[in-house]
Amino acid sequence: MPLKLPNYKLLFLLACIITIAVNNAQAQDIYAAYRQGWLKKAEEFKPVLQETIKKPVGIVKITKDTAAFQGWKAINSGGIAQLYNSSFNKKNSGIVVDFGEHLTGYCTFTLKTLRGDMDAPLRLKLTFGEVPSELATPFDPYPGSLSRAWLQDETVTVTVLPATITIPRRVAFRYVKIEWLGASSSFDFGFADIRFNATTSVTVTPPPLAATTPAIIKDIDRVGLITLKECMQTVYEDGPKRDQRLWIGDTYLEALANVYSFKNNDLTKRCLYMLAGLANDDGILNANAFELPQPHAQKSRLFDYCFLYNVALKDYVEATGDKQTGLDLWPVAKKQLDIATKYTGEEGMMDYQKAQKEWWVFFDWKDGLDKQAPVQGITIYTLNQTYALAKLLGKQNDIAWVPALAKKLKDAAHKNLYDKASGLFVSGVNKQVSYGGQAWMVLSGVASKAEAQKALKALPSVSNAVHPGAPYMFHYYVAALIESGLKAEAKEALTNYWGGMIKKGADTFWEVYDPTDELKSPYKFFPVNSYCHAWSCTPVYFIRKYPEIFQR
Amino acid sequence: MPLKLPNYKLLFLLACIITIAVNNAQAQDIYAAYRQGWLKKAEEFKPVLQETIKKPVGIVKITKDTAAFQGWKAINSGGIAQLYNSSFNKKNSGIVVDFGEHLTGYCTFTLKTLRGDMDAPLRLKLTFGEVPSELATPFDPYPGSLSRAWLQDETVTVTVLPATITIPRRVAFRYVKIEWLGASSSFDFGFADIRFNATTSVTVTPPPLAATTPAIIKDIDRVGLITLKECMQTVYEDGPKRDQRLWIGDTYLEALANVYSFKNNDLTKRCLYMLAGLANDDGILNANAFELPQPHAQKSRLFDYCFLYNVALKDYVEATGDKQTGLDLWPVAKKQLDIATKYTGEEGMMDYQKAQKEWWVFFDWKDGLDKQAPVQGITIYTLNQTYALAKLLGKQNDIAWVPALAKKLKDAAHKNLYDKASGLFVSGVNKQVSYGGQAWMVLSGVASKAEAQKALKALPSVSNAVHPGAPYMFHYYVAALIESGLKAEAKEALTNYWGGMIKKGADTFWEVYDPTDELKSPYKFFPVNSYCHAWSCTPVYFIRKYPEIFQR
Repeated sequence: MPLKLPNYKLLFLLACIITIAVNNAQAQDIYAAYRQGWLKKAEEFKPVLQETIKKPVGIVKITKDTAAFQGWKAINSGGIAQLYNSSFNKKNSGIVVDFGEHLTGYCTFTLKTLRGDMDAPLRLKLTFGEVPSELATPFDPYPGSLSRAWLQDETVTVTVLPATITIPRRVAFRYVKIEWLGASSSFDFGFADIRFNATTSVTVTPPPLAATTPAIIKDIDRVGLITLKECMQTVYEDGPKRDQRLWIGDTYLEALANVYSFKNNDLTKRCLYMLAGLANDDGILNANAFELPQPHAQKSRLFDYCFLYNVALKDYVEATGDKQTGLDLWPVAKKQLDIATKYTGEEGMMDYQKAQKEWWVFFDWKDGLDKQAPVQGITIYTLNQTYALAKLLGKQNDIAWVPALAKKLKDAAHKNLYDKASGLFVSGVNKQVSYGGQAWMVLSGVASKAEAQKALKALPSVSNAVHPGAPYMFHYYVAALIESGLKAEAKEALTNYWGGMIKKGADTFWEVYDPTDELKSPYKFFPVNSYCHAWSCTPVYFIRKYPEIFQR
Repeated sequence: MPLKLPNYKLLFLLACIITIAVNNAQAQDIYAAYRQGWLKKAEEFKPVLQETIKKPVGIVKITKDTAAFQGWKAINSGGIAQLYNSSFNKKNSGIVVDFGEHLTGYCTFTLKTLRGDMDAPLRLKLTFGEVPSELATPFDPYPGSLSRAWLQDETVTVTVLPATITIPRRVAFRYVKIEWLGASSSFDFGFADIRFNATTSVTVTPPPLAATTPAIIKDIDRVGLITLKECMQTVYEDGPKRDQRLWIGDTYLEALANVYSFKNNDLTKRCLYMLAGLANDDGILNANAFELPQPHAQKSRLFDYCFLYNVALKDYVEATGDKQTGLDLWPVAKKQLDIATKYTGEEGMMDYQKAQKEWWVFFDWKDGLDKQAPVQGITIYTLNQTYALAKLLGKQNDIAWVPALAKKLKDAAHKNLYDKASGLFVSGVNKQVSYGGQAWMVLSGVASKAEAQKALKALPSVSNAVHPGAPYMFHYYVAALIESGLKAEAKEALTNYWGGMIKKGADTFWEVYDPTDELKSPYKFFPVNSYCHAWSCTPVYFIRKYPEIFQR
């Protein structure tokens, strides 16, 4: 029987598959090796927390006031001696102690017997609130979509007096409500002391703003600094009340503000290493990470945050000159670009619908926001920023294909998303006009300076334009205004939005702020919102980076 | 001017007053010196707690059942693996874990992640119950008269998994209900382990009863031993759930039972010293004491308990031959007799009404119980027992006046309180007939043996006789039956009363038990009753001291 020729086509395909598989396995091995080193590096740069003992400044009454933020106001009702000098019982149950500022850390209190013998355990509930409404809104039955346990109410049984008790969980708050839940009527007890061990990794006091700075800008900067300081713990947290962890998006913005304020670049470095160390086997980053019980990621593929990692790394290298870290983490940045190529269509438009099926595409807490323009914009922006990083590191050859792809996406965006008639960028099948869409078309450079100015100026008069839902998106809007040279508009937008929170009594900037809906919550219950949120601290960055706009 | 003669009568009175004042001051000084030494002695005999790790035996369902004690029954519903092998969430919230026996100590549990990443704190409530009804009765709004904090429900916030958590307060329980109060829906967690560090100062296993002993008596003895064991911690506690402390009345009965079971006489010694060390400046004892933060008494003058201290001391010396302790504490016993002389009227009747104005005169948890006969009886009993103690110690001369006073009181009691027509002893202005009154007239020896038998036999058919309100008084009733030689009646009474608790599923004997009113509570809320109570353990004493009555 004659020999049959082998099926070369099949063999070739088989060889290809084996090669890809081996490469993939090697890639995974490489990441595994890298990740251990990266995590080790992250640990090396773990900051020592600064601890400061804080004392209450007085007692407040939480009072209904339709004019106040969320309908509740804290009214000064005297000194803390009121609490220390009287017995604590049913009558003063619900007293609210004010620490005068937002704090993060651990609450300790000391109880003493005032009269008679303690002949039964006593029971107290402490509710910690960042804003007055948290102390006035019943938590149960809990309607929220996140864990009920985020709410900071803790019940304590005390069996022996005197007692000094530390609430085990870390809390973030300004006010603490103390409720009497039970005690023997045959004795009196009282508070001898309440104190708070406040923590932050901030060690630096930033310089004051120029004397010419308007008062409202000074206030915004001050509150922004406190917000950032509170979120800077052993990582950049998103919020010290909630979620208490490292998110790429928040880290990016915190790092921006940090460069212009607390200059704790080692914390940025630690977070970049930790995120890299917790990447998936395929090298794609997870959007968020926890430090305890040991650093680990929540499996969370968030499209826009992967891209922003690259931007944050580039910013870090630029700000510090620390090329070594840039080179160490370069494989991660390079890897994230796979996301861009994977979803680039033939015509240079990102297949944002497919991406949304496969990823969490976030951009903002805003129902109904169309993601086409933002996806297109952030992809271009990331390609450009990553190429800039490559240039800083001498790695252009690694990604020589990037400028061409960026240009292709940019041209396609201009062709498909720019509506010449209105001078606005549109997004999606319904040609939605949004602040987010304009912002990302501007930041990506799709819009020329003239187009950018035209679009951004037109936006406020577009009645159905989708507004930012949270300070996070508002940041990109202000950045776009500055990028377009619309300085006065940038100043006005920042002053109105963050100044609006200031006028409503903010001690720290809120995770969610819609001036028209103060009870807005992405989690179906506004008390579970974070009221000290990293992504809201960026006025610090704007005000201090652009003194010519804001400090005059 | 002629010299005036001094007013010798006045001078004499003045001298008397000074002498008395100096003597009083010296007496106080003596007590002060004694008390330090007594407390030191108490500390020397502090037992080391035995710790045993206990594991749950299964899961139960708490089910409504009008035939069950207090209307609730625990029905076995499978092994603990049910809990360990499944995720803990809203669906199995309220699961009740059964440890199979009453335990006192500290609960520790370990939680683990089963699926996904814990991205929020979680919140659990654990409710510990001695009896099924405690797990089925809402605690709030709390109607009870004692501290709400006695109820054993504890809320825990857990921020990081895996976690091993120990509930800080000591609890006493058989069942623990676990409620889910909140967690992130993006992960599953479960219980890896629940364990209990059970404590007692008991180290001895008492011998089994005679083989001839009826099953119900064996059960009563078994449950009595558990009750006593659970109450024997670093002092004789009244109840490990509530009040968790040393009361003279409970100590007296616990010491009785201890002599015939666990033989931890050092614990008795410790408690006698501690109570003496915490006497008032005038030498009168306080009724109860706490060990923490340092041994201290609750200022509580309880008439009958002061007397029972003397009886307990005599019993201790008699049981152990430890005369040294008897001599050490003799000044205390002698001092308590002042109470007898202070309230003895001219005719040998105690002024029980005056005593009730100036003291807490307890005897029983029974509204409407007239205290005249019990006061008269316990005073005579105490005089006799204290004189017996004096004889053991060779101290008769110290209190040579006692036998005469005892006889005077006894004669007066017989004259005034014995109703020849009915053959019953009466009490108070309304001539109340009570079990307590008969019991104390018998124990004091006011009743002759024939009178005692007649009265105690007549009692059950007296329709308006005041019955015992709690096992504490029931003890004295059974003791009186035995004292009168009514062996069969004693056995029957003990079997019916304590056996009634057994039949209703008691794991330990209850503080309060009225067969006709299972929800009875001196504290206006039956779940705050103690269901493992020292003063209810005395069947152990009766059964083991009188085998000829009970073990056949």
